[in-house]
Amino acid sequence: MPDEAVTKGLRGGETGLLAFVACASIAAGCLHFLGATTLVAFSFAAIALGGLAWAISFATEQLGERYGPAVTGVLQSTLGNLPEFFVVLFALSAGEVVVAQTSLIGSVLANALLVLGLTFVAGVVRSEDGVMRFGRRLPNDTATLLLVAVFIITLVGVSVASDDRASHHVKAISIVGACCLILVYATWLVGYLRSDTEPAHGKPRIGLLASASLLTAAGVAAAFVSEWFVAELRPTIDRLGISEAFAGIVIVAIAGNAVEHVVGITLAWKRRGELAVSVVKNSVSQIAAFLFPLLVLCSLAFSHSLTFSMEPIYIVALVLTAIAVWQITGDGEATLFEGAALVVLYVILAAVTLYE
Amino acid sequence: MPDEAVTKGLRGGETGLLAFVACASIAAGCLHFLGATTLVAFSFAAIALGGLAWAISFATEQLGERYGPAVTGVLQSTLGNLPEFFVVLFALSAGEVVVAQTSLIGSVLANALLVLGLTFVAGVVRSEDGVMRFGRRLPNDTATLLLVAVFIITLVGVSVASDDRASHHVKAISIVGACCLILVYATWLVGYLRSDTEPAHGKPRIGLLASASLLTAAGVAAAFVSEWFVAELRPTIDRLGISEAFAGIVIVAIAGNAVEHVVGITLAWKRRGELAVSVVKNSVSQIAAFLFPLLVLCSLAFSHSLTFSMEPIYIVALVLTAIAVWQITGDGEATLFEGAALVVLYVILAAVTLYE
Amino acid sequence: MPDEAVTKGLRGGETGLLAFVACASIAAGCLHFLGATTLVAFSFAAIALGGLAWAISFATEQLGERYGPAVTGVLQSTLGNLPEFFVVLFALSAGEVVVAQTSLIGSVLANALLVLGLTFVAGVVRSEDGVMRFGRRLPNDTATLLLVAVFIITLVGVSVASDDRASHHVKAISIVGACCLILVYATWLVGYLRSDTEPAHGKPRIGLLASASLLTAAGVAAAFVSEWFVAELRPTIDRLGISEAFAGIVIVAIAGNAVEHVVGITLAWKRRGELAVSVVKNSVSQIAAFLFPLLVLCSLAFSHSLTFSMEPIYIVALVLTAIAVWQITGDGEATLFEGAALVVLYVILAAVTLYE
Repeated sequence: MPDEAVTKGLRGGETGLLAFVACASIAAGCLHFLGATTLVAFSFAAIALGGLAWAISFATEQLGERYGPAVTGVLQSTLGNLPEFFVVLFALSAGEVVVAQTSLIGSVLANALLVLGLTFVAGVVRSEDGVMRFGRRLPNDTATLLLVAVFIITLVGVSVASDDRASHHVKAISIVGACCLILVYATWLVGYLRSDTEPAHGKPRIGLLASASLLTAAGVAAAFVSEWFVAELRPTIDRLGISEAFAGIVIVAIAGNAVEHVVGITLAWKRRGELAVSVVKNSVSQIAAFLFPLLVLCSLAFSHSLTFSMEPIYIVALVLTAIAVWQITGDGEATLFEGAALVVLYVILAAVTLYE
Repeated sequence: MPDEAVTKGLRGGETGLLAFVACASIAAGCLHFLGATTLVAFSFAAIALGGLAWAISFATEQLGERYGPAVTGVLQSTLGNLPEFFVVLFALSAGEVVVAQTSLIGSVLANALLVLGLTFVAGVVRSEDGVMRFGRRLPNDTATLLLVAVFIITLVGVSVASDDRASHHVKAISIVGACCLILVYATWLVGYLRSDTEPAHGKPRIGLLASASLLTAAGVAAAFVSEWFVAELRPTIDRLGISEAFAGIVIVAIAGNAVEHVVGITLAWKRRGELAVSVVKNSVSQIAAFLFPLLVLCSLAFSHSLTFSMEPIYIVALVLTAIAVWQITGDGEATLFEGAALVVLYVILAAVTLYE
Repeated sequence: MPDEAVTKGLRGGETGLLAFVACASIAAGCLHFLGATTLVAFSFAAIALGGLAWAISFATEQLGERYGPAVTGVLQSTLGNLPEFFVVLFALSAGEVVVAQTSLIGSVLANALLVLGLTFVAGVVRSEDGVMRFGRRLPNDTATLLLVAVFIITLVGVSVASDDRASHHVKAISIVGACCLILVYATWLVGYLRSDTEPAHGKPRIGLLASASLLTAAGVAAAFVSEWFVAELRPTIDRLGISEAFAGIVIVAIAGNAVEHVVGITLAWKRRGELAVSVVKNSVSQIAAFLFPLLVLCSLAFSHSLTFSMEPIYIVALVLTAIAVWQITGDGEATLFEGAALVVLYVILAAVTLYE
């Protein structure tokens, strides 16, 4: 049957993209080992990393078609954050603690402000009455998870600033905080997945074995490319003369979340606002309440450990972002000016970081 | 027809008020140039300034009767803030940066806390069931605009405090922030005015030419009186032995927003709660998200420039005010205790400023 | 009639508990005067204090059965906070200002985070669809009262930190703030009690005279036991080697609010979620907006005065708690993960305090 033929197998564009991702990854490796010019090697690694995030996301989607949309969405954002996980891990093992931490913070801020704002703008432009509508539950749950993360970060920050004995215990408090945060995220996740009563609707176009193989291959490649990306990061920062903060908050955050950017905005443009908001929001809460604490725990194995202690400017940015995003999205409606407000907050933050 | 006779032309009270405003303005000028006692000259200038704000507001209302209520409201609060604009401009050109900045902050706080609180008290007292009701959209939009302004101010403040390279770039960041803020305000304004589908309902009682002439005359007079007001401000501060902060946050803020005070409370008393809240809220968001950034840009022409960098106490007051006002008004209902809470917040703020 | 027989008089358990409370109080006194080991004397005083809070609460409930549920609830939480009032008063008179202040802060945080969180967990576990529902009004009113209290505390804190002249006036500003806070609380209370149109439903099981006598006896005993409790507190802190902050935020706060803990969780378990949330929320707003300012005014009689000035870590904890609790409870619904989030916030706070 022709219908079956259309839905089965890879589409032409997908095959091409996968081939491109494979080539870009190999090129990034060659450029790294052959000692190419910094900017060229860094750019190729960044492109390959974005492409691998897409490949992982695609393979997970095919695996996930067997389940409902909430399960698929969570699987997708979890494995889609795999490249980011590797980048931070390699940055930590290379002793680049500032870059590791600012990339995590930057990912939260870029997704919560820039990507969400652009998603709103796209959704409003394509709406009929200038208002984009979506469910209220996920924005409010994300606000809660962000507030819990922000609570820990702020308390640790104030403890350190007041130069008490607590500052000697930042590591211990961070471990307690990380375990607590992962516990809350897990409790939320179970409730969220259980509420997904919609039956699996899609028919996977590639088989289980093919999806799993693609996933494994892309995952392993992501680990390698991340290492090359991190290795080129320091020379790139020095060459461009930018601050470490700007590199983490803007460059790594945008490169590492390229997929969320494209997927969110494309979905909103296709009038699938509900799903667009869900992808972006899931990514925000996952990085803040799962990836960050997980990396805090993982970093115990390294000589340079990652804690929740950070510069006041990031604490303040995270607190205000958590509040502003809740205020703007909590009512389940977005207008053009609200999208603009979110984008503008990110622009101002980037401007401040530029001079840090 | 008698009905027509009643609605056409100025009412007796209005003619009297306009004459009084003219006399007060002339008296303020005479006292200024004749070198009268400080307190007398200052008081006359303050009274004339309040009167001119009313005259501008009245002329704009007459002009605006040709449009719907949202257009009229915005026109009115924009031109009604003209005297305030001149006061800050002259304060800046006289090098009184602290007074200029605290008057702007004070105007936001006085309108958002004191005036809104008294408006709620008046509305609740005159309600039947102890609850004053109004639309939820404007309070929430105002909260968004205030949060964006507060975000910029706080980030700039933390940058300066941490004594980074960023503090040398406060001016650059303030310019970026000001442009961003005006852009968001403009986007909001377009959407807000477009949603004003109600047809023009009023019949202007004075002609187009008369309104325009009155507006021009009052505007020019406001510019002159503002200059005299600012000239008397420094000697008055010294004579009364009050702090600059108290002068800006309390005296200039209350004198410069006398019209919003009277109009808001009177409308609430007349059971026109919706319009009362709209006048006060529009004034708050306009000062924070339009007048302040506009003056930051204007101040580039002066030797003393206005930036978003301010004392920690004002940053904290603005952040908490933005959050508290959103919490109290976001549900579209106000009770007596909520009105009292807003007034009390302003009283405490004034008490703290008194000792700065 | 057997029904009457069942409802009249004390139940067996109640008689037993009252006897136990009397014995524990006497034992605490004996141990105090006979100079028993610190930990034993302290534990007995703590147990007696919790028991007396229950006895006061029980006597008030019997007195209150003559009125509607809101009146009873408020009476109960007011008199139930009597032991806490005495503890702070004796701590102040003994010059233990840090312990006095941290117990008050700890009571707010323990009730708002730990007790409310456990109440939600109990309510959700016993619900049918994983959601506990309750009225939206009280959570939002409590959020307003907490925000007003937090506004004062933060402004005072920033004034002190910036080392302005204001820091010399902390006492004056605290008095103004205390009067304002009590005024707002009183206005709220009048409105809240007036809205209690439900008729008195219960039949008191013990007479007016018996209730009043029990109340007086328990009140007097609470005053004595509080003194012994405070007297043993300092040696206990030294013996256990814990910080004053941990003693106030965790030990005194949990001991002093044992009744709210048990009552809130038990009510939620019995599927009386509305009442459970009301008891806990009333207790939070009363301590923050009535007991704290009242003790600030009372402390004027002592050489060591209590003010709203406190360590930055507590200011930040209170601000974030006020915001998080509002965000989580403002929609009148609680899920398991929200309960877990509140409990986790308290755990992290306790961990930070441990190292202060």
